Amino acid sequence: MVDERTFTRGLAAFFAGVRDVPVGIGDDAAVLDFDGARVTVTCDPVVAGVHFEPTADPVAIGRKAILRNVSDLAAMGAEPAYALVSVLLPRDAAHVRDGVFEGLRSAAVECGVQVVGGDIGTTPGPLTITCTLIGRSTERVLRRDGGEVGDRIHVTGPLGGALLGRHLEPRPRVAEGLWLVERSEVRAAIDVSDGLTLDLATLLIASGLPGAELDEIAIPVHDDAVRAASSDGSTALEHALADGEDYELLFLVRGDSLPADGPLAPCARRPIGRTIDREGIWLRAVDGSARRLEVGGYQHGI
Amino acid sequence: MVDERTFTRGLAAFFAGVRDVPVGIGDDAAVLDFDGARVTVTCDPVVAGVHFEPTADPVAIGRKAILRNVSDLAAMGAEPAYALVSVLLPRDAAHVRDGVFEGLRSAAVECGVQVVGGDIGTTPGPLTITCTLIGRSTERVLRRDGGEVGDRIHVTGPLGGALLGRHLEPRPRVAEGLWLVERSEVRAAIDVSDGLTLDLATLLIASGLPGAELDEIAIPVHDDAVRAASSDGSTALEHALADGEDYELLFLVRGDSLPADGPLAPCARRPIGRTIDREGIWLRAVDGSARRLEVGGYQHGI
Repeated sequence: MVDERTFTRGLAAFFAGVRDVPVGIGDDAAVLDFDGARVTVTCDPVVAGVHFEPTADPVAIGRKAILRNVSDLAAMGAEPAYALVSVLLPRDAAHVRDGVFEGLRSAAVECGVQVVGGDIGTTPGPLTITCTLIGRSTERVLRRDGGEVGDRIHVTGPLGGALLGRHLEPRPRVAEGLWLVERSEVRAAIDVSDGLTLDLATLLIASGLPGAELDEIAIPVHDDAVRAASSDGSTALEHALADGEDYELLFLVRGDSLPADGPLAPCARRPIGRTIDREGIWLRAVDGSARRLEVGGYQHGI
Repeated sequence: MVDERTFTRGLAAFFAGVRDVPVGIGDDAAVLDFDGARVTVTCDPVVAGVHFEPTADPVAIGRKAILRNVSDLAAMGAEPAYALVSVLLPRDAAHVRDGVFEGLRSAAVECGVQVVGGDIGTTPGPLTITCTLIGRSTERVLRRDGGEVGDRIHVTGPLGGALLGRHLEPRPRVAEGLWLVERSEVRAAIDVSDGLTLDLATLLIASGLPGAELDEIAIPVHDDAVRAASSDGSTALEHALADGEDYELLFLVRGDSLPADGPLAPCARRPIGRTIDREGIWLRAVDGSARRLEVGGYQHGI
């Protein structure tokens, strides 16, 4: 049996053929056309014991269930509008219900999202919440597959250490996505959910590019990455490169067309490297030397 | 804590306020407006041990995950178009994956549905599949809340005994829904998922009606209801009234405006009773006597 990532990549072919869509399987969200209106949809679950500790605050769990999906819309440059929420409560944990719903509501309100339906049921398993987010977009969206060799790589904020707690409170970069989607020099984007190196690899594969070079000194390291490093054998940089659930936007820009030193608002960003015509993801140190990064479990084609 | 049904009914108020929608929480599906285009969305899970036996055929499970949601679109008179699929595999059951996906695909193809995205992950709990179905509809949809006293009650097919196996292979009444939605004399509809009496009660509550009268002799009893009755203490009629997962459409029609004896195609239907200005759901026998039916766990207001 193939691994999950390879399998997911094969799903686009597996499910091909019934109807054409502007963007289908393989991006942060799908984009549908309804008589000229573009509808952007995405659906990811959160599961106790996988995406949060079973003892986590129910309000925070409900919030995360909405926010991680809003982040997928942000990565497309779409405006969040509606949500469906499916909540499966363990039979012995009905008491978390009100907190979960309060979290779903507060995150939805903050993001301008109307919850329009869904389902509440029970499960013999762990608390599981699956939200579908539905957004509006223009004809142009931020896809993963538009990158070219020589593009600059940018990220909207510091990375690493989210598992210390920040992962429960994603701050989806909606305004940034809406700003980026209007700039034709922005060629491709993804949100950083699996970790910088892995999500960059996904972006490169989608764009058909062989590799990228990151400037070690330019990688924005989150304070949480420093804290995480102080309690394990990894460095803060390693956390910034490999940890997931940052929910910053990682995007590719044509050459130097988006000035690195321009005004940051409304889209704070750091230029961290460039796409190259050489296989692999490389980290360049200040002394000029480069070493190839391991792309965990995902080396195929990079 | 309030029971789940009461809680679900309170969700419309709980989540009210961010945006207006043509149809929100409380119907078979929500209807959204995108620049004049109507987008109909619904999302229900299937969970091992709740919606199917853990030993069930993975292909059938995948099919059910699509088809029960297609049935919700059918009940709105919408045309199924797209799906998102979220599959959570137990860690010890990765071998069911290919069957589940084959089931998702075959049901989607049969219904003209394009799978455009989703997620595959693992869970410490049971196999859980949550599909979001997205359909096209016209400005008029089949809502639950349009019924009036004196309406005829119709159902599209025989009921009862679905748990003997038929529940795994819903036959969503899409063509019937599309036919019914074009007839202004059809005032309200729902799909029979929780059982005839309970779904009728839901329809009555949504429409603000006090009650209904069913003609005992007119209730279409499925052969499976007869089989189920032969192995337990209930009658076939009781199965037809109370069993769920039939996925027929139950709908209310103005007076006698839809002839009971007209040509059945394209919408087979049986007139089974009428809405009345008296509290409760009543079953009228051929001798003219009527008895009030128990509405399991859902007596409020009926």
